[in-house]
Amino acid sequence: MIVVLAGGVGAARFLQGLVQVVPPAEVTVVVNTADDVEMHGLHVSPDVDSVLYHLAGLADEARGWGVRDETFGALELLARYGQETWFQLGDRDLATHIYRTLLLRKLSLSAATDRLRQGLGIACRILPMTDSRVQTYVQTPLGWLPFQEYFVKRRAADEVLGVQFRGAEVALAARGVCEAIGAADGVILAPSNPIVSLGPILALEDVRAALRDTRAPRVAISPIVGGATIKGPADRMLRGLGREVSAVGVAEGYRGLIDAFVLDSVDAALAPRVEALGIRPVVTDTIMRGRAEKAALARATLDALGLVPAP
Amino acid sequence: MIVVLAGGVGAARFLQGLVQVVPPAEVTVVVNTADDVEMHGLHVSPDVDSVLYHLAGLADEARGWGVRDETFGALELLARYGQETWFQLGDRDLATHIYRTLLLRKLSLSAATDRLRQGLGIACRILPMTDSRVQTYVQTPLGWLPFQEYFVKRRAADEVLGVQFRGAEVALAARGVCEAIGAADGVILAPSNPIVSLGPILALEDVRAALRDTRAPRVAISPIVGGATIKGPADRMLRGLGREVSAVGVAEGYRGLIDAFVLDSVDAALAPRVEALGIRPVVTDTIMRGRAEKAALARATLDALGLVPAP
Repeated sequence: MIVVLAGGVGAARFLQGLVQVVPPAEVTVVVNTADDVEMHGLHVSPDVDSVLYHLAGLADEARGWGVRDETFGALELLARYGQETWFQLGDRDLATHIYRTLLLRKLSLSAATDRLRQGLGIACRILPMTDSRVQTYVQTPLGWLPFQEYFVKRRAADEVLGVQFRGAEVALAARGVCEAIGAADGVILAPSNPIVSLGPILALEDVRAALRDTRAPRVAISPIVGGATIKGPADRMLRGLGREVSAVGVAEGYRGLIDAFVLDSVDAALAPRVEALGIRPVVTDTIMRGRAEKAALARATLDALGLVPAP
Repeated sequence: MIVVLAGGVGAARFLQGLVQVVPPAEVTVVVNTADDVEMHGLHVSPDVDSVLYHLAGLADEARGWGVRDETFGALELLARYGQETWFQLGDRDLATHIYRTLLLRKLSLSAATDRLRQGLGIACRILPMTDSRVQTYVQTPLGWLPFQEYFVKRRAADEVLGVQFRGAEVALAARGVCEAIGAADGVILAPSNPIVSLGPILALEDVRAALRDTRAPRVAISPIVGGATIKGPADRMLRGLGREVSAVGVAEGYRGLIDAFVLDSVDAALAPRVEALGIRPVVTDTIMRGRAEKAALARATLDALGLVPAP
């Protein structure tokens, strides 16, 4: 059993590789929900949806968000009704939010997520990190902004002075999360934004304890390559928070929680500094251009865990 | 001020004519809500939406329901999630239901409807008949069916043995409905299904009393022409309920509530029988093929009320 702690697109692409080399039913994905947002009365879970759509083969991978062959008819009419439309919800995507919102009347977010997963025919287990409400806020020169306002509405253009995961101090992990980490053969921290994607998951005290205490080997993959992120504002966030903008900066944040750290070949020179943190560095190509590169990264990661991937 | 009691498409097409000959701001439309239905957790008001879309110029008039240039991406994915999709909701149409459902968290159906009207730039006043829950059930050989199950899911194919408007006995008209009827210069019963479209409105005791007591002249337009309906199952419903399937059968049902009755030229021979009911017959062409015919029917109807339409 492999547990993957996941944010959005970076994690989703990594998972597309992982399910090529281990049976999907042996993968449990724990997904960040601190950037969930209510739009037009509907519950949107952007990171969960990225994982769902990528694993179901529905993702618009070129655009980097949402569903392929998408239309935006509903959004046009919502705009006419005076609704804000900076959060672009496509018509197919809306079906997910409509159905999730319906399910949430009677079910937990975990149970609702499981229904979505089933509907899309995904064999991996997908768990939201928590069934409680945890919300990421980003401190900018304008003040504290809800995450999606910082990220989507203002296009992550503001300087980041601080980050809070409101509610994380009292939230419990969703049922199954800590148990999965405790019983895993290996735990992977996906190449996601370490601050706002994996940060909220690791801010849950029981997840942190489970990760600290598990007997399973633990590995993280750097989302920072050559001092910059592949996608998203992780580099600017690290800088704003006074952390080193490098694979080493990411590894530092995971100290005590991981045994090994996968960093890109272009950062090979940083390996000794990772080692100095008490973390075993694994240098390989981490840029997931296509299907083959995704599988290769998954294999290297399993190898770093001491696990033997399928040939 | 003109008040129109309205069902769905027939009424909506009539209103497209009426607003050509009287200023839209002088028209109050009272719309049936007894076939409202919750779909996927969203509040759908089919008759209100027909009126809104037709008056906003958004209606798909050829298809007879929904919005023009519609897409169905959301419905496809909802089907994949295992949701029933016999009630065809297009993507643009969904925006209306999403926004209405959001508004209904804090507002009455009347207030929510008014926001939709505003968003679409419609100058007529549009009132749902009630803010309470009234639900049409149709008795068939299979038993009592909720209206949309009878009408959409089973395509109105079952014999109709009875009709109930559950909740109508305790529901009050929405605020403004009875006041508008009382203060009107004329009241028009649109060419809608007399049983399941206008029937629920007239089943509200306070609306019935307001209509009985108003000093305004009152006219109905027959939706039955040559013994059949232009659209919908009104003819089969009349037959199933043991009523005469003709303009006279419709006029009989409105006895005591109307002063004049507009029937089609092909039914001219029925005029004396309408007169015998104590209702003044007005014979004219009622088939609304296009824009000009709609305006002509509106003019004839205003004339039947003794009102002078704009030239």
